[in-house]
Amino acid sequence: MNGAMIRYILGYVLKIEAVLMLVPCITSLCYREHEGIFFLGTGAAAFLLGVLMTLKKPEKTVFYLKDGCVATSLSWIFLSVFGALPFVLTGEIPNVINALFETVSGFTTTGASILANVEGLSHTALIWRSFTHWIGGMGVLVFLLAIIPLSGGSNINLMRAESPGPSVGKFYPKVKNTARILYMIYIGMTAVMFLLLLAGHMPVFDAICTSVGTAGTGGFGIKNESLASYSPYIQWVTAVFMVLFSVNFNAYYYIIYRQFKKAFQMEEVKYYLLIILAASLFIMGNILCTMDIRGGVFDALTQSVFQVTSVISSTGFSSVDFNLWPAASKTVLVLLMFIGACAGSTGGGIKISRIIILLKTMIKELQSYLHPKSIVKINMEKKPVEHEVIRSTNVYFITFMLLFAISVFLVSLEGKDLVTNFTAVIATLNNIGPGLSKVGPAGNFDGLGSFSKCVLIFDMLAGRLELFPILLLFHPVLWKETLLAKRTAWRRKGRG
Amino acid sequence: MNGAMIRYILGYVLKIEAVLMLVPCITSLCYREHEGIFFLGTGAAAFLLGVLMTLKKPEKTVFYLKDGCVATSLSWIFLSVFGALPFVLTGEIPNVINALFETVSGFTTTGASILANVEGLSHTALIWRSFTHWIGGMGVLVFLLAIIPLSGGSNINLMRAESPGPSVGKFYPKVKNTARILYMIYIGMTAVMFLLLLAGHMPVFDAICTSVGTAGTGGFGIKNESLASYSPYIQWVTAVFMVLFSVNFNAYYYIIYRQFKKAFQMEEVKYYLLIILAASLFIMGNILCTMDIRGGVFDALTQSVFQVTSVISSTGFSSVDFNLWPAASKTVLVLLMFIGACAGSTGGGIKISRIIILLKTMIKELQSYLHPKSIVKINMEKKPVEHEVIRSTNVYFITFMLLFAISVFLVSLEGKDLVTNFTAVIATLNNIGPGLSKVGPAGNFDGLGSFSKCVLIFDMLAGRLELFPILLLFHPVLWKETLLAKRTAWRRKGRG
Repeated sequence: MNGAMIRYILGYVLKIEAVLMLVPCITSLCYREHEGIFFLGTGAAAFLLGVLMTLKKPEKTVFYLKDGCVATSLSWIFLSVFGALPFVLTGEIPNVINALFETVSGFTTTGASILANVEGLSHTALIWRSFTHWIGGMGVLVFLLAIIPLSGGSNINLMRAESPGPSVGKFYPKVKNTARILYMIYIGMTAVMFLLLLAGHMPVFDAICTSVGTAGTGGFGIKNESLASYSPYIQWVTAVFMVLFSVNFNAYYYIIYRQFKKAFQMEEVKYYLLIILAASLFIMGNILCTMDIRGGVFDALTQSVFQVTSVISSTGFSSVDFNLWPAASKTVLVLLMFIGACAGSTGGGIKISRIIILLKTMIKELQSYLHPKSIVKINMEKKPVEHEVIRSTNVYFITFMLLFAISVFLVSLEGKDLVTNFTAVIATLNNIGPGLSKVGPAGNFDGLGSFSKCVLIFDMLAGRLELFPILLLFHPVLWKETLLAKRTAWRRKGRG
Repeated sequence: MNGAMIRYILGYVLKIEAVLMLVPCITSLCYREHEGIFFLGTGAAAFLLGVLMTLKKPEKTVFYLKDGCVATSLSWIFLSVFGALPFVLTGEIPNVINALFETVSGFTTTGASILANVEGLSHTALIWRSFTHWIGGMGVLVFLLAIIPLSGGSNINLMRAESPGPSVGKFYPKVKNTARILYMIYIGMTAVMFLLLLAGHMPVFDAICTSVGTAGTGGFGIKNESLASYSPYIQWVTAVFMVLFSVNFNAYYYIIYRQFKKAFQMEEVKYYLLIILAASLFIMGNILCTMDIRGGVFDALTQSVFQVTSVISSTGFSSVDFNLWPAASKTVLVLLMFIGACAGSTGGGIKISRIIILLKTMIKELQSYLHPKSIVKINMEKKPVEHEVIRSTNVYFITFMLLFAISVFLVSLEGKDLVTNFTAVIATLNNIGPGLSKVGPAGNFDGLGSFSKCVLIFDMLAGRLELFPILLLFHPVLWKETLLAKRTAWRRKGRG
């Protein structure tokens, strides 16, 4: 393992985080809150440590996939630990595990909160909470790649570990360019959303928090009622942008380069929009038939579209307590939680493209029963999907379900009801936010015990980094080999 | 498609069912019940139809995989329809869908019942209900293969479609012998169990029903309380035999041929017993800590072992209302429902061997992150698993989860709670029997609507036949091609 390189990257990540902590510091100044001092202190400490870690440039910059995975996982853990510190120091979230849960939930763009009274937080803390979504949404390492050069093809290993979806990076000739284009789209769309929210008379502070929270498909609300108290206009704007940020960003790349035909032929995006449409109409009908919706069809449509886009994009804002919805609607929401957003977006979940591949795998199998000797290829966008992509998609799904089952078992140990355990795990593993029952929109995750919270922290990280990078950290062989390599190096040094 | 051959097989199946219906007829005579006359009538009708269908021997006996699948699926549907008729005719289950549900539940060895008052049934109906488990457990086509000769290698296609587990039939040189040996083991073990139950002072009728119900890992009880009212001795005997019937029958083959070392080295069986042990001890501890168990440790152990073996073997007897257990224990039971029994047994579920392969697939993937260029093979019993088996296991799991998700959605349409919908589907799809909440041991499936019952009937059949044979029936290409072939044949005839 290239330890020096990993140290170097971690140092850079800390420096970036230190700079980003200026955002809550400035907010603190604007609102004359004393909490900013703790953010400044933590930022300074992170910067100092970062500088120390990047003093010595690594000799070898070659980087294998496992190095990429370890660097990414550790980066996210470092980010979260330093990000959580100010919450503990200011006393706004005194419990260490709670603070870590909230911060990991922020960076992984989950939006699951342990806070019952969000409105009691300072503006400083609120903006940091929402801002972590924005940082985590695109990925801090992608940002790193946009600004520092890494040798040759190795940097793809970093990006592959952090970016969501079955495959990445084959698209643009240079990773650095890819990262820059992605960030430009990201910043641009966030700005447009911010302006549209302002146009709907949303207060500036709320608009900032909501737009960065939507951009990262995070979902931390800054009101106890999430987005329920805002106007339908604001809810619709948010819904539309939740969709836009959870669409495969390749679509925007195509649009920028005027390849409109390609953009509108993207199979994943088409199915994604189709699912949203179908689910929204179904839920609208279902709640209109079974509940008393005050505003009639329009209200029912607003609620269903908002909730559907919020859940499938893995954002997790709520405009209504969908825990009170009829079972069929809740089931649809749970299924959407599993599906998730498009690959190559800021959204989480199993991802539409994976679901499409899984479905096509099933259909192919059925066909092989009809014609055992014929060779059928699975196509996406009229091109055959590589065998390796199909294989890794299958393995991803299997690993996902196994991890899901183990997590549900671990969380169930504290004796909460099945729906709470089940949806708490899926809502964190797929980085959505609220689940159902006790962790529904009206509840929060504070009712869970420390052990369960630790399990869910792990799930949020695993979900955001697409399972394997974080699982790898727990692979004994990784550490055995690293130790062995270290020992051999020492011995050689001793001899030399 | 070889339509003539399928007709011929279906005819034979009907004739077998007619003969098997003599069992309730005889019971009827013993207890002087008038219900027997309807079984006699249905049996006679089935026999007549069977004779008509087998009058003309098919010219071609060659049989492809798709023919095997279609023949198997249709056989099971025919079996169920004729098996349900007497229930409707006697008026004991007047509703047609209910009668079909109960019979499919019997033949597929599910044991999910729509009856609130089982004790109200005649002995005739009760024995038929339990006997369907025994027939369905080993498979009626396996029986067919044991008595009638089919040409060459084609009969393997029939057996593959009906037998549970990733692979079958490569084991013994001749399918016919395989089928005979399997049935001998099956009959022998059922007889031993029957005698042991008698030794525990169980009434003869109860002992027959319980032993055939256990042998098929079915689970229809003949008391409203299932097995709760019987002595701990009887519960332990049943628990042990639930395990024995859900173990890979290859183990018995090895024992018969004195290859003890091989029998005790079977990886699947080892893991199976280990899971049962771990789950039983966990639940025992969990219910002892959280509930007031009258008989202390022994009672808790009896309850936990019985429930664990009942659920994982996919039998579904109950000795206690486990719906009242704490959440952790219920979660363990739900996870066991997914896992299921060993391949090559009468049990249902995803199967231990598949779970092992899935787990090993995940571990292999992690290893490929460490050493991308090394080639790791997945081993079972120290032999590398064929790529085709791994692939089909993955596809099976994917299809299973997709079918599960769709079924949960369809059942949720009628608005029951999530736990009911979720466990009703898994309990039927994996041929277990009772679920939780409204379909728990104290409840039954009658509370569900007709549409949901139809979905679950489909799930029971799909689960018993391992998904693809029954899904194939709904593949439009199958019917299109068959029609096309028919038309071509007619045209040729016209010309000739």
